[in-house]
Amino acid sequence: MPVIALLTDFGTQDIYVGVMKGVIWGICPEAKIADLTHEIPPQDVTAGALALWGAFRFFPKGTVFCAVVDPGVGTNRRAIAVQTQKHFFVGPDNGLLWWAISESEVVKVVELQNRHYFLPVISRTFHGRDIFAPVAAHIAKGVAIDEFGRELSVDELVKLPTLRAETDERHIQAQIVHIDRFGNAITNLRREDFNKWLSLHGQRDWTAKIGDLRFNALCQTYAEVKAGEPLLLFNSYDLLEVAVNRGNAAEQLGIRKGDVLEIWAEGAGAE
Amino acid sequence: MPVIALLTDFGTQDIYVGVMKGVIWGICPEAKIADLTHEIPPQDVTAGALALWGAFRFFPKGTVFCAVVDPGVGTNRRAIAVQTQKHFFVGPDNGLLWWAISESEVVKVVELQNRHYFLPVISRTFHGRDIFAPVAAHIAKGVAIDEFGRELSVDELVKLPTLRAETDERHIQAQIVHIDRFGNAITNLRREDFNKWLSLHGQRDWTAKIGDLRFNALCQTYAEVKAGEPLLLFNSYDLLEVAVNRGNAAEQLGIRKGDVLEIWAEGAGAE
Amino acid sequence: MPVIALLTDFGTQDIYVGVMKGVIWGICPEAKIADLTHEIPPQDVTAGALALWGAFRFFPKGTVFCAVVDPGVGTNRRAIAVQTQKHFFVGPDNGLLWWAISESEVVKVVELQNRHYFLPVISRTFHGRDIFAPVAAHIAKGVAIDEFGRELSVDELVKLPTLRAETDERHIQAQIVHIDRFGNAITNLRREDFNKWLSLHGQRDWTAKIGDLRFNALCQTYAEVKAGEPLLLFNSYDLLEVAVNRGNAAEQLGIRKGDVLEIWAEGAGAE
Repeated sequence: MPVIALLTDFGTQDIYVGVMKGVIWGICPEAKIADLTHEIPPQDVTAGALALWGAFRFFPKGTVFCAVVDPGVGTNRRAIAVQTQKHFFVGPDNGLLWWAISESEVVKVVELQNRHYFLPVISRTFHGRDIFAPVAAHIAKGVAIDEFGRELSVDELVKLPTLRAETDERHIQAQIVHIDRFGNAITNLRREDFNKWLSLHGQRDWTAKIGDLRFNALCQTYAEVKAGEPLLLFNSYDLLEVAVNRGNAAEQLGIRKGDVLEIWAEGAGAE
Repeated sequence: MPVIALLTDFGTQDIYVGVMKGVIWGICPEAKIADLTHEIPPQDVTAGALALWGAFRFFPKGTVFCAVVDPGVGTNRRAIAVQTQKHFFVGPDNGLLWWAISESEVVKVVELQNRHYFLPVISRTFHGRDIFAPVAAHIAKGVAIDEFGRELSVDELVKLPTLRAETDERHIQAQIVHIDRFGNAITNLRREDFNKWLSLHGQRDWTAKIGDLRFNALCQTYAEVKAGEPLLLFNSYDLLEVAVNRGNAAEQLGIRKGDVLEIWAEGAGAE
Repeated sequence: MPVIALLTDFGTQDIYVGVMKGVIWGICPEAKIADLTHEIPPQDVTAGALALWGAFRFFPKGTVFCAVVDPGVGTNRRAIAVQTQKHFFVGPDNGLLWWAISESEVVKVVELQNRHYFLPVISRTFHGRDIFAPVAAHIAKGVAIDEFGRELSVDELVKLPTLRAETDERHIQAQIVHIDRFGNAITNLRREDFNKWLSLHGQRDWTAKIGDLRFNALCQTYAEVKAGEPLLLFNSYDLLEVAVNRGNAAEQLGIRKGDVLEIWAEGAGAE
């Protein structure tokens, strides 16, 4: 009873997702198909990567993740399949799969080359239907991933910035890894790492700085500050986020992907 | 081939619903999962209760309804599972399940306490994933509901106003039980009860009154009156509703949950 | 493991689609259900017909398509089931199924009359639940379509304009078959037919005319022309479409369903 989990930016107004399911069930009628979400903002690879990373660990052993957020479709970007100890991942090699597989024990990575496992006609614009859905279905059916093409090393894959902030006893250096559709600036600092760091330096006060902004406390919800005011909270992915209540933090505060957010234990030299 | 039907206010932009499916299939790979809807207005328990009530009778024997509209998540509100003659219901004890189970033959109600059937880590904010999905999956797998915790009496459950208006020969007393997202004021008067009442008093004329408003006829559709005008119709749940064509009845007419709508057989003393 | 594919204009905010799944699984617990889309614009039969036509060929043999875009529900419009060499189609006889079945080898068409296969109570407004879902489920279960009612000839069915433009060596006569929700005017000229025609007359220049507009080139994307400018492109259905970048072509250019778009090989007498 293999599970195939779909994640795309196709939306649900059009028939794209339905067609992928038709293709999958034509190849592997036993597959159970779960929609992770199809409302990733169009072509937003990091949003898709975050969603996949947030979800994959909750799926059973053997689940095949078929993820399609693919601005490079029709170009020479690679298509890949990845086998890990617990799961399989199929999608474009543009970073979309990276955060999920970088926290998995990778068994093998291959480039999708063997047209025998694709639909007979490959369009230039809809590899979800023509390549990724049929390959995912063949994996669910038991085809070994060697069959799909040449092996790649993990080093060859397109990567995203690491989803883990650097911490030492007195200091955390986090990075903005994603600006979401609301303008929230999401860092790579995980709640668990922050809590560990807090206990390391004895739960003392701290100061977070990004650009000219300073924070000394976390919020639990956006509404804890006035409309238009900035705040810091751990979001639903348990990643630290810079937000503005009812506003667009990235625009308003001039924050961009790649910017650094630092946290200093109080009295440890931040200012 | 157990069916698990999901009803939430999580929307489909995020991965919450997908993750619940992953958890379910990790525990009960044979389950078929139906999405009732995930677009209940956030935290609107009565909207969720109405949707569940409108849908549950169409599902096969053995269906497990997993309903999560849960503004009290993380507080001490109870989590419950209910076995009826035909179905199972899992969710928070906040009224969400009430209208469905109050029209079912209840076999047993339990409080969800046995952490053995939850995910290992219970978050403060996502019991859909950590408690309700795994319990629903275990029920689908055949675990007896006694296993999940201590038995409760139906009397102990959180209730909503009854979804049936009081009628006598000359008079109906209905109550506004829900204001929907469009401002329509939904009563607990069912079409079948109204029709029965009409035939009881010989299909004579009637007057409905709520506040200062009077109605003497039903509409079939909103568009039968001019934009901005109030009307009375039986909605898609077959419940009588006070609406304003292209307007917000609750705001415009000052109607609130709990308000009374009375219907008098003509000449029976309404005015 | 029969597949039932659903296509409706019910949206996903309400429970209608979920209820149809409950009905289906009550009758045929083995069915796998795919949502093609439920976001066809309300009552837009041609939009639904296009979506079904674009999707059906990707589904496995034996798939039962249950399509409900049904402005005539409750009137005397016929309800039908169609068996083709590869698939089954169930829905109202209002053209919705036409483009899909006109490109299939039809085996048999019947009118849905046998109440034995419907729900016990037939509402006036929700035949998706009361008639189409149960019939689709019975087909998936193996009931022969003769069982549902009297045989119809294909000639008796409600039809849409043909989804294929007329071409001769020098000239193409296409027709606007649909105005979509964005005001794009979709013709019945297929990319494959246009390419064949181009090669027939030696890939020379051409002029397309509709009303007072003239085009001499295709775009690949809407953004290739300035905002407010008209363009011609093959859309995701591979049908030629008249669009306005960030505008509403039908309104702005006065194009209606049924209008003719002509293409002339250059020097072949267009102007």
